[in-house]
Amino acid sequence: MKKPDARVAHIGIAVANLEEAMAFYRDVLRLEPSSPETADGATIVSLHLGDLEIELMEPMTQDGPVASFLAKRGPGIHHICYRVSDLSSALAECRRRGYQLIDETPRPGTGGRMAAFVHPKATGGILLELTE
Amino acid sequence: MKKPDARVAHIGIAVANLEEAMAFYRDVLRLEPSSPETADGATIVSLHLGDLEIELMEPMTQDGPVASFLAKRGPGIHHICYRVSDLSSALAECRRRGYQLIDETPRPGTGGRMAAFVHPKATGGILLELTE
Repeated sequence: MKKPDARVAHIGIAVANLEEAMAFYRDVLRLEPSSPETADGATIVSLHLGDLEIELMEPMTQDGPVASFLAKRGPGIHHICYRVSDLSSALAECRRRGYQLIDETPRPGTGGRMAAFVHPKATGGILLELTE
Repeated sequence: MKKPDARVAHIGIAVANLEEAMAFYRDVLRLEPSSPETADGATIVSLHLGDLEIELMEPMTQDGPVASFLAKRGPGIHHICYRVSDLSSALAECRRRGYQLIDETPRPGTGGRMAAFVHPKATGGILLELTE
């Protein structure tokens, strides 16, 4: 078996109401939320579990990608972000194999890390983010 | 900050076609799939990333929970499974706080581990599985 090149960095969850969504994580899983940050038209609160984060995302406006996901599918898991050892070569591999990208070049994601989204068409219907 | 009681054990992804869905994970993330196993009317292939697994789930019949998720929402992330240090006391905490459970008592999940599903109503719309 080859050594895996990837780890899950975070899981992004679209929620209608941050306070309500956080209650279960706090009460049952005993996780403490981070200070809120903003990205892609959403307020984002992170919950740390080891080296992985759960990002709860509540839209601030009605026209961002999180608002659009909520309107179409309701609350749910919006994307998974994988950390790879070399983001540029992962994106080059996507292009070489014809996997459709949302971001052709990396842009700043949450926590200030560079990241790029891969189109759900490339991955059997799942929105994936790649970061380094 | 309190020490977190939970880790993400696996992420369950509903796919229409396992072979197609696996291509991206193999080609770009360089992950090797496990031997398929069956649970809840689905064929399940796991991809290991450190101490976390991605479970790709393809329905075997039209009447199981994965088939029903695919019919309603299309391919996507079906559930997140959290590992807790004490499953019985986590379920007791859910009951005490009025969080709706799908499984009132633990039952065997993938990999032979005991597990219980929490209703999406309890968690802001996300199907969560708890295991030990």
